[in-house]
Amino acid sequence: MTKTVIIGTGHYLPEVCKSNENFLQNNFFDEKGEAYAYPNEKIIEKFYDITKIQERRYIRPDQNNSDIATIAAQRAIEDAKIDPETLDYIICATNFGEVVDGDPRSNFMPSIAVRVKNKLRLKNPKIVAYDMVFGCPGWVEAMIQAEAFIKAGMAKKILVIGAETLSRVVDKNDRDSMIFADGAGAAVVERKESTERGLLSHNTQSHTLEEAHYLFNGRTYKPEVDDNNLYIKMLGRKIYTFALKHVPVAIKQTIEDAGLDITDISKVLIHQANEKMDEAIINRLYKLYNQPVPAGAMPMTIGKFGNSSVATIPTMLDLILKQQLGDHQIQKGDNVVFTSVGAGMHINAIVYRF
Amino acid sequence: MTKTVIIGTGHYLPEVCKSNENFLQNNFFDEKGEAYAYPNEKIIEKFYDITKIQERRYIRPDQNNSDIATIAAQRAIEDAKIDPETLDYIICATNFGEVVDGDPRSNFMPSIAVRVKNKLRLKNPKIVAYDMVFGCPGWVEAMIQAEAFIKAGMAKKILVIGAETLSRVVDKNDRDSMIFADGAGAAVVERKESTERGLLSHNTQSHTLEEAHYLFNGRTYKPEVDDNNLYIKMLGRKIYTFALKHVPVAIKQTIEDAGLDITDISKVLIHQANEKMDEAIINRLYKLYNQPVPAGAMPMTIGKFGNSSVATIPTMLDLILKQQLGDHQIQKGDNVVFTSVGAGMHINAIVYRF
Repeated sequence: MTKTVIIGTGHYLPEVCKSNENFLQNNFFDEKGEAYAYPNEKIIEKFYDITKIQERRYIRPDQNNSDIATIAAQRAIEDAKIDPETLDYIICATNFGEVVDGDPRSNFMPSIAVRVKNKLRLKNPKIVAYDMVFGCPGWVEAMIQAEAFIKAGMAKKILVIGAETLSRVVDKNDRDSMIFADGAGAAVVERKESTERGLLSHNTQSHTLEEAHYLFNGRTYKPEVDDNNLYIKMLGRKIYTFALKHVPVAIKQTIEDAGLDITDISKVLIHQANEKMDEAIINRLYKLYNQPVPAGAMPMTIGKFGNSSVATIPTMLDLILKQQLGDHQIQKGDNVVFTSVGAGMHINAIVYRF
Repeated sequence: MTKTVIIGTGHYLPEVCKSNENFLQNNFFDEKGEAYAYPNEKIIEKFYDITKIQERRYIRPDQNNSDIATIAAQRAIEDAKIDPETLDYIICATNFGEVVDGDPRSNFMPSIAVRVKNKLRLKNPKIVAYDMVFGCPGWVEAMIQAEAFIKAGMAKKILVIGAETLSRVVDKNDRDSMIFADGAGAAVVERKESTERGLLSHNTQSHTLEEAHYLFNGRTYKPEVDDNNLYIKMLGRKIYTFALKHVPVAIKQTIEDAGLDITDISKVLIHQANEKMDEAIINRLYKLYNQPVPAGAMPMTIGKFGNSSVATIPTMLDLILKQQLGDHQIQKGDNVVFTSVGAGMHINAIVYRF
């Protein structure tokens, strides 16, 4: 049976570490442009209680999104031990493209996938390179697109990248800026004849009727600023309620589509948006099956790395496979869920057997 | 045999018509920031001789890219006579996303596909909406992605949109600004069992080693401007040479992959970038077969509509199918090529039988 099989993974964790203390001097305003009635210490304490983010990684001023995407891609290619000239596609999930230091403006000409292919010095014109925009669920969705190309017989090997530099598009006057981080992750997938390992099932939802602008690009919260800069903005409470309502059900459906039960699932790799939200989602998922959540079922990286959008799942996956995330391990035969929720609002889930 | 079949098309031609005379008062500078040694009349005359563009369409100040994408989408859906809630995917090809009047900054949060789905008031969360970035060849490539979803059994009906508002990202001080235009086109494709009509073959190339920055976002050519605005920029001569070298061969390969000869091809719908370049490409294509170019083989819209990027091919296709482009017609059984070249540099071609 034709399967989409992960044959290599890689990631890049940016070097600059910003702890919560780095935000003590920021001037935070709410969405109405009003200062908070309590000090930054309190704002940061409340922020930590909800998200459990202690620190996050930012790229250096001399780096850009395509640079970190290229490093993650290179590492995935080396891990896969393939000649990269034999790739059929390079898909890059990103929502802001290239964003230079000091200016939050997106640049998609050329695309990140094209820049990566250029920086990898690949010559083969048959490697099709494109970017796709799908909010934080972009990398998981790009994996589903890779599955389509493979199942359709249009590709054998595909490099799937998720790369974003949210530090370049946060509003320093918005406390939500503390959530976001930079990162890049990648996987090489290959078409294999296999009855064992590979992508078993997938589901995607785009809720756009009421939810299209839950995450959006908007002006700074700082009053009396008259530039046109656009920053990533979110309606946190609405997202929380939305995610809790829809994500557990979508994961359950995907597990059922794979012909499996929750007890067959070794781990759920969930997009790292907010630890409280992720905890609520995993609890509700297991509750749908009347099961307790097993220890170690949901690895978390958000405390140290923040929310790096499309990069969180491939980064976590690579860390686990390389045994660099505490005691977390993935063994041969393990069924693992990849699932994400974000701007769109999009939700997706994959069940993958290692 | 499973085929991807076009069941409806639609387009939107923006209302504001800008003739070449509208550029007489512009201050043009070359890439070094130097004024030209001859008057604008001469610049425009030379421009017309090469491109054959007389006028182009711009959207109104109150419109944005997602608005015109929605109109084209709505028209394609009506033409297809389907319930849009039965769509599986909405794919939107775009390189600049949403760009408001007076500020050339891209906004991809949310994506154009999400905004379209929202404006169409579609409720079904199973309609997956995403944007893809692939230069001017984006719409043709999105059709190839639709083919992948259909061939993989992942979709039955897909709405494929190309929408761009280049008037919002041109540098008024660059004479190349006269090339670019706004527009939106769309098709609904459906999975059908058919031995006759449908998509027969496709090819894509991404040349990124030397060519990645032939089209790019850069600063204005006007000297001593210190804003950070980014505008669409191109190395016209390099693109011309590149296109002439690679596009005819790529089209020939795609015709061969369909098991056809050039004499089986009724029309070549080529991306409208520059009439001189398109003429040179079609001449070289037929020369590869030692055949003369038949009258009416290459419909042109560039004279009246300029280069509207991803929108040119679906717009032209819809005009021909609705018998609104001179004497051009497509009959049942006709084999038609869709082909494009642009930022990446990407090239693609489809052979489609009506």
